Formats: sequence, C-alpha cells, structure tokens
Amino acid sequence: MVDILHRVGVKDATPKQVYDVLTTIDGLAGWWTDDTKGSTDVGGVIEFRFPPGGFDMEVVDQRPSERVTWKVVDGPEEWVGTTIDWDLRQDGDYTIVMFGHRGWKEPVEFMHHCSTKWATYLMSLKSLVETGVGAPAPRDVHVAYPD
Amino acid sequence: MVDILHRVGVKDATPKQVYDVLTTIDGLAGWWTDDTKGSTDVGGVIEFRFPPGGFDMEVVDQRPSERVTWKVVDGPEEWVGTTIDWDLRQDGDYTIVMFGHRGWKEPVEFMHHCSTKWATYLMSLKSLVETGVGAPAPRDVHVAYPD
Repeated sequence: MVDILHRVGVKDATPKQVYDVLTTIDGLAGWWTDDTKGSTDVGGVIEFRFPPGGFDMEVVDQRPSERVTWKVVDGPEEWVGTTIDWDLRQDGDYTIVMFGHRGWKEPVEFMHHCSTKWATYLMSLKSLVETGVGAPAPRDVHVAYPD
Repeated sequence: MVDILHRVGVKDATPKQVYDVLTTIDGLAGWWTDDTKGSTDVGGVIEFRFPPGGFDMEVVDQRPSERVTWKVVDGPEEWVGTTIDWDLRQDGDYTIVMFGHRGWKEPVEFMHHCSTKWATYLMSLKSLVETGVGAPAPRDVHVAYPD
C-alpha cells in the first residue's frame, strides 16, 4: 500500500471555511470540478465528473471544522477502495490542510500523475478560500497531456 | 519507508532538454533555486540553497536523456540519506518526467509539505523548458507559510 500525501496552508482562513468547501456541493465545485453532484452527508455519495471520467465518493466521516473522509466507490480501477482524508487545524493566521489519498495497491505511473494533479487541486482549494476563485475542471491546471 | 512520487509531461520538449536542466547549474537554477552551486558530474555534490536553508546532493547516477539520481548528503535531518530519481522518456510531443523522492523514514508533516512543494517545482521545471521561464526560489510558489 502506498499513499499520496500533501499539505497546504490557507492564509487568513478558519478551519470552518475550509471545511465548508469540502462539505458543500458549491464549495467542491469551486475548486475540484464544476460537475459535482450528490449528497455530502455522511453515508451519501458525491459524484465528481471531469471531461475524461469521474469518481464517486462515499462520505465516510465528517467532524465539523476538523476532518473529512471519503471512500472511492466508483471510478478508475486503481482508485476504487482507496480513501481520501482531509485534516484541518488552525495555526496562527493559517488553516493547515493535511491531505492523504491512501490505500493505492501499487505505485503505478497513474499514481505519480494523480499525486501531482492533487497538488494543483489543493492549490485551487487554497486559492478559492483565499481569493474566492479556484481552478476547478475544466479550468484546471494541466500537468501533462490534456488531463 | 515512504516515497514522494510525481509525474509531469513537458510539451514539445525532448528528453535531452529536460536532462539539461537537471544536469547543469544554470538549468537547475532556472527552476529550483537561484542559489545553486557545485559539481553536476557523477560523484560531485550540488549545493542548493534557499532562504530558510538548503540541501547538498551527491550525483549518484546520470544516463544522458534517461535518468538522474541524487542522494541527499546534507540538509534537514529527514532528508539526509533519501534519494531523488528523475526518469525521462519521450511520449509523442511530450517528455514524461517520472519523479521519486524515496526513503523517507516516516510520513511526517514535513514530508506532506515537501510533496506539495515538489509538485510546484516540477511545474516550474515544466514551465522553464516550455517557455524559458521557471519559478525558482526566491520567486517560488508558496504552498503554506513563507516556505
């Protein structure tokens, strides 16, 4: 098992502000993909769609302003069964976001790609909360091919 | 042991162009940090310095247009002894860069930070080769505090 790990600091933001963009359809659509639907309640499934495909995430855990956990229930084979954790905490003027996409079976090339792509989406989330403008698909940062 | 893995595709570039910015002081200074000195020959040590500190990397392996490996011989405690691999290959109009920073003892918070920061530096390398302009320190993308 191998994991993708990241960390960003969102300036002049509270954990609640970050939690809100992880637990509302409008918030998620503001940094990850315009085409976000479904239920963000615990036990619900959020459907994220991108031009090349998408992911369905079951919301496994939510602790207000502290933690969100999703489990991938549909999408690319390498993603199904993996989990995505978001841990939030205040540190001075910043909210620190600790991110983990855990449970990859193998460190395949697609995992390398997703690691870099997640970093750009975390920067999109940071920008959304700091400035009101993120870079969700299809206006996302491209790290390789049209991706 | 845990690893940081990334992948970018550099558009309209040959593996040799990417290899050159990994194996020359001017090239490295163009995407990672202005303050780069030392020897890029195998067995040599490259000194990368940033406002908060730096890293000394021994050049362990170089295969022209294919692969570069460094070993961290001085720097933050968590980095010393880790290795950094760059694998290059042509894929259509792109050069694919597979990156691994391997051998971290523990997935500490600093590793999460470095994972995200490496992604921004890989995007800087991509930009340098594609456009002639990178974002090396001290003009680097900030992912958290002044970092």
